[in-house]
Amino acid sequence: MTSLTRRALLQASALAATTAALPAHAAAPLATTQAPGVYRYRLGDYQLTALYDGVWQSPIGDDFIRNADAAAVDDALAAAFLPPRVLPISFTALLVNTGAKLVLIDTGTGGQTADSAGALPDALRAAGIAPAAIDTIVISHFHPDHIDGLRSKTGERIFTNAEILVPEPEWAFWMDDGNQSRATGTVFRYFRNARRIFGDLGSAVGRFTPGDEVAPGIVSIPAYGHTPGHCAFAIHSTGRSMLVMSDTVRNPYLFARYPRWQPIFDMDGAQAVASRLTLLERAAADRMLVAAYHFPFPACGHIARRGDGYELVPAEWRPL
Amino acid sequence: MTSLTRRALLQASALAATTAALPAHAAAPLATTQAPGVYRYRLGDYQLTALYDGVWQSPIGDDFIRNADAAAVDDALAAAFLPPRVLPISFTALLVNTGAKLVLIDTGTGGQTADSAGALPDALRAAGIAPAAIDTIVISHFHPDHIDGLRSKTGERIFTNAEILVPEPEWAFWMDDGNQSRATGTVFRYFRNARRIFGDLGSAVGRFTPGDEVAPGIVSIPAYGHTPGHCAFAIHSTGRSMLVMSDTVRNPYLFARYPRWQPIFDMDGAQAVASRLTLLERAAADRMLVAAYHFPFPACGHIARRGDGYELVPAEWRPL
Repeated sequence: MTSLTRRALLQASALAATTAALPAHAAAPLATTQAPGVYRYRLGDYQLTALYDGVWQSPIGDDFIRNADAAAVDDALAAAFLPPRVLPISFTALLVNTGAKLVLIDTGTGGQTADSAGALPDALRAAGIAPAAIDTIVISHFHPDHIDGLRSKTGERIFTNAEILVPEPEWAFWMDDGNQSRATGTVFRYFRNARRIFGDLGSAVGRFTPGDEVAPGIVSIPAYGHTPGHCAFAIHSTGRSMLVMSDTVRNPYLFARYPRWQPIFDMDGAQAVASRLTLLERAAADRMLVAAYHFPFPACGHIARRGDGYELVPAEWRPL
Repeated sequence: MTSLTRRALLQASALAATTAALPAHAAAPLATTQAPGVYRYRLGDYQLTALYDGVWQSPIGDDFIRNADAAAVDDALAAAFLPPRVLPISFTALLVNTGAKLVLIDTGTGGQTADSAGALPDALRAAGIAPAAIDTIVISHFHPDHIDGLRSKTGERIFTNAEILVPEPEWAFWMDDGNQSRATGTVFRYFRNARRIFGDLGSAVGRFTPGDEVAPGIVSIPAYGHTPGHCAFAIHSTGRSMLVMSDTVRNPYLFARYPRWQPIFDMDGAQAVASRLTLLERAAADRMLVAAYHFPFPACGHIARRGDGYELVPAEWRPL
């Protein structure tokens, strides 16, 4: 068996050189785009749809984790069969159809984070849903990759009929001119971006107190640290519950496995770790279905304890 | 943080009772079907497309694993957040576009295994490919869930222009009348089914010797045990390689984690274990990209060593 396997591998390596010269005339040309990332699942009477927006292959520096060295991060990436020094940050928004309302939690990047992201409108179209049909948009926090999908690159609103709900402490922090005046670099750009996205929306933006129910069966959960007003959500329908972790846990190979790591993305590293550990332990202890914006699409599954940390056990794709 | 989370969960549990009474009038009705399972990825100059056919939620008996007890199997299922006594057997065929040829490895269930499977033609359509465009079909082995997709329930051929290539020892075993006469039960039905599928195809069925290159860059690998002529495949293009494990490893939570388990599906349990261990160790040692028919869609990823066994690290969905 072993020798045959080895032979097959060597044999085909030699053959590969010859096959490259064949004329290209398959009946179907190579596709130029990925299939739309749309995945539906059920929670009680609700239908959830994971909508894939794309990925940003983010180069990371030696200081990416405040309390771990670069070699440890590269080891974690290698365990996920990922190359060193680059973190794939994928984006998957969650659409909740309660039967009575279409609620979208976070909005994708609007094509304004990376060329390889911005596909959420295509995914929504593939799901058979017009942007104008969305009733409510719930925002977890004001980082651009969560809010930029509210507008096109040229500023037009995408979800023209939706009420927009944001965490009150998030609004208070990012829309405060004093806070902006003290910000620099990337964070300063986030302040400016929040004004670009929300500035002229006025009463279209509702603010909720973390802990409030924001839509039928969707309850916000304060999970501060990543940003000052960052929220997770619990969704409940007919006796079933799930936890939407938002950015409490980002790439699971890093931040579920090593939940105490403090990435530079987390504005208050220690507070973010406390939120992360609380939600991970709750999910693991209660064997809750979870979703998170930066998990690999379809960005849902369960959390299991593993070593000193946790791991994501992805939900298996299945028919509805 | 903890108390707020708990409060949110309790609060919404109470609210869920009231929301059920709301009128159902979302702008989009609940969808009735899953989105097509289509995922494209690249290997050198080749384009691969994972095509999801569906799943069979297979009840399993106490004798499902010949050398492990039912409690151990249920523990393995629980670690995957799956209910006891039921094994989800998902089906994902692999389409290879070499640029010159469209090659389909295995064919889906043709809707003849379970009501919740048979979606491969829908997935192929969503991928923009007509069944008549397929040039070559390569069969790993003659179990019905791999060959039934060649025909409709009423017997019509689906891939009307495709040459069909099967492993010679698989043909020799299943088409032998003496072997059939000695078979009983499920295995007898497999013999009868092989005749239904292949019986009148005559010269449309080509037979290859395991180890042969069966299509440009696609080399068969003998991986006997699951059935007498079961084959895996290596695919090579422009210096990149991957391993198509076929049924050497089925559900990864059972058979990558516990590769020495001998399920009743494996006709020669000890030989199947040897094939499984060889391919898993090769994949892990060489950090090869792998695909397998019964892995969760999109049924590709990498194999890492874990404990006394292995685990599947699923490939992350990404743009093309």
